[in-house]
Amino acid sequence: MSTSSPAAMALAKQVGIAMFAVDTATKDTMGIEILSCEPGKAVLRMTVQELHLNGHKICHGGFIFTLADSTFAFACNSYNKVAVAAGCSIEFLKPGQLGDVLTCVGQEQALSGRHGIYDMKVTNQKGDVIAMFRGKSAQIQGTVIPE
Amino acid sequence: MSTSSPAAMALAKQVGIAMFAVDTATKDTMGIEILSCEPGKAVLRMTVQELHLNGHKICHGGFIFTLADSTFAFACNSYNKVAVAAGCSIEFLKPGQLGDVLTCVGQEQALSGRHGIYDMKVTNQKGDVIAMFRGKSAQIQGTVIPE
Amino acid sequence: MSTSSPAAMALAKQVGIAMFAVDTATKDTMGIEILSCEPGKAVLRMTVQELHLNGHKICHGGFIFTLADSTFAFACNSYNKVAVAAGCSIEFLKPGQLGDVLTCVGQEQALSGRHGIYDMKVTNQKGDVIAMFRGKSAQIQGTVIPE
Amino acid sequence: MSTSSPAAMALAKQVGIAMFAVDTATKDTMGIEILSCEPGKAVLRMTVQELHLNGHKICHGGFIFTLADSTFAFACNSYNKVAVAAGCSIEFLKPGQLGDVLTCVGQEQALSGRHGIYDMKVTNQKGDVIAMFRGKSAQIQGTVIPE
Repeated sequence: MSTSSPAAMALAKQVGIAMFAVDTATKDTMGIEILSCEPGKAVLRMTVQELHLNGHKICHGGFIFTLADSTFAFACNSYNKVAVAAGCSIEFLKPGQLGDVLTCVGQEQALSGRHGIYDMKVTNQKGDVIAMFRGKSAQIQGTVIPE
Repeated sequence: MSTSSPAAMALAKQVGIAMFAVDTATKDTMGIEILSCEPGKAVLRMTVQELHLNGHKICHGGFIFTLADSTFAFACNSYNKVAVAAGCSIEFLKPGQLGDVLTCVGQEQALSGRHGIYDMKVTNQKGDVIAMFRGKSAQIQGTVIPE
Repeated sequence: MSTSSPAAMALAKQVGIAMFAVDTATKDTMGIEILSCEPGKAVLRMTVQELHLNGHKICHGGFIFTLADSTFAFACNSYNKVAVAAGCSIEFLKPGQLGDVLTCVGQEQALSGRHGIYDMKVTNQKGDVIAMFRGKSAQIQGTVIPE
Repeated sequence: MSTSSPAAMALAKQVGIAMFAVDTATKDTMGIEILSCEPGKAVLRMTVQELHLNGHKICHGGFIFTLADSTFAFACNSYNKVAVAAGCSIEFLKPGQLGDVLTCVGQEQALSGRHGIYDMKVTNQKGDVIAMFRGKSAQIQGTVIPE
């Protein structure tokens, strides 16, 4: 259930589409897909492929971080006010195996003035929690897409 | 100046070569090079290319994390005792621009029993600090290469 | 709504009482009260007094950390299996003022084998979020109270 | 060896004295002493007393955090430009026992514009590392003592 207005929902969706279209790292290099972008929330997905594997033949932790960090960026920019990351932390719980479908749900936890806290949870196709990422954002001047 | 024995230095170098050879994510997907691997220390390098850019046309923070996380892995496994990451944090100070040569130096700060703390510092070609990453490692059973 | 059995609820409550009784730092030095201890969850409270104030005449961040860290300890030991902190991070959102009643709710987010993730949220009497703390726990051998 | 000017050294010392004098939490409640305050650096000390002990009869982690957080505050305000904490992380390596003399050395690692990174290392009287704390600071308007 969302308490956002239809206009806020539509704006968030447009912001998500615009950001994703130009994000080479997320889209092309990592092969990440965007499933939704709503006010204060985003869902991204990445299937673990050969290109993501480290020497232990599991998904490089840096790419799980990348999935979560991208989700964070979509969630905290979803109001069409440019926001930047001011800090983050990640906890790894389980490895990502080749073929795993990793879904990352990012959700705003607190927004106080220009500063926000967002939690990203990465799970695999079985529902196991792979990693939890917490990001602190700061809104700066400017909009993502023209108002 | 290193206080490590020639044998420890040689072992660390061999461990680094062996780990790097099979690390698809680091070597192939990211284009990261390894410059050195010594006891408790490693140096890796990544030139920011188009494939690393996010929607702001700067290096994706996740890839700077990946560079530091890989450096951490080489440094904490350099004794040929398998070590895993038990937690980490990163602070971003400056963006990485297209063409920037990012060097990450990882250095052990404390080793107490099986637990270690490693600091990774990412700088660009001008010496500006781009990011600082701190990792906590835990040695588990096993060796990286046969003893 | 809790899905825990009455026995698990009673055990968690007993563990909480036993831990609190001997915790000089939390109880006496900080003046923290325990409101509840349930399986995977705990609620503690601290009123900001003169003794908590730093040079800016606001609550020392270290004492907000202490409130959250204690809550974490109660929540992750609530199954009567000794658990220790393996890492934590905190984000400060608003200062605590003299007279503020700070309530910290700690809640398990994930438990995978012996490792758990707990989120602690500190709010004031107006419901403003003061800080968010995330802890990673590891269960070790032993019980808090005799089985 | 310090590369700071005598004037900068004298100013940092005065700032330290002024801040410490009004910091009830650090000075009175915790019993922390300040050993030095120099440009970008501070050293504080705390002897573990009964009042610091938690239910395991070791120093509460929150008070080790408090020692490091106070050291951070002195180090990042030492230029007499008001700086606030914008985030921090801590790793605990060993417990503090009753009677241990914990010394915390805080040192600037990077200062880029208004943002700084400071590392605090807490050791006991045997030189064992007890905890490592990293803080990110942001300078805001104002001075600690009149210019």
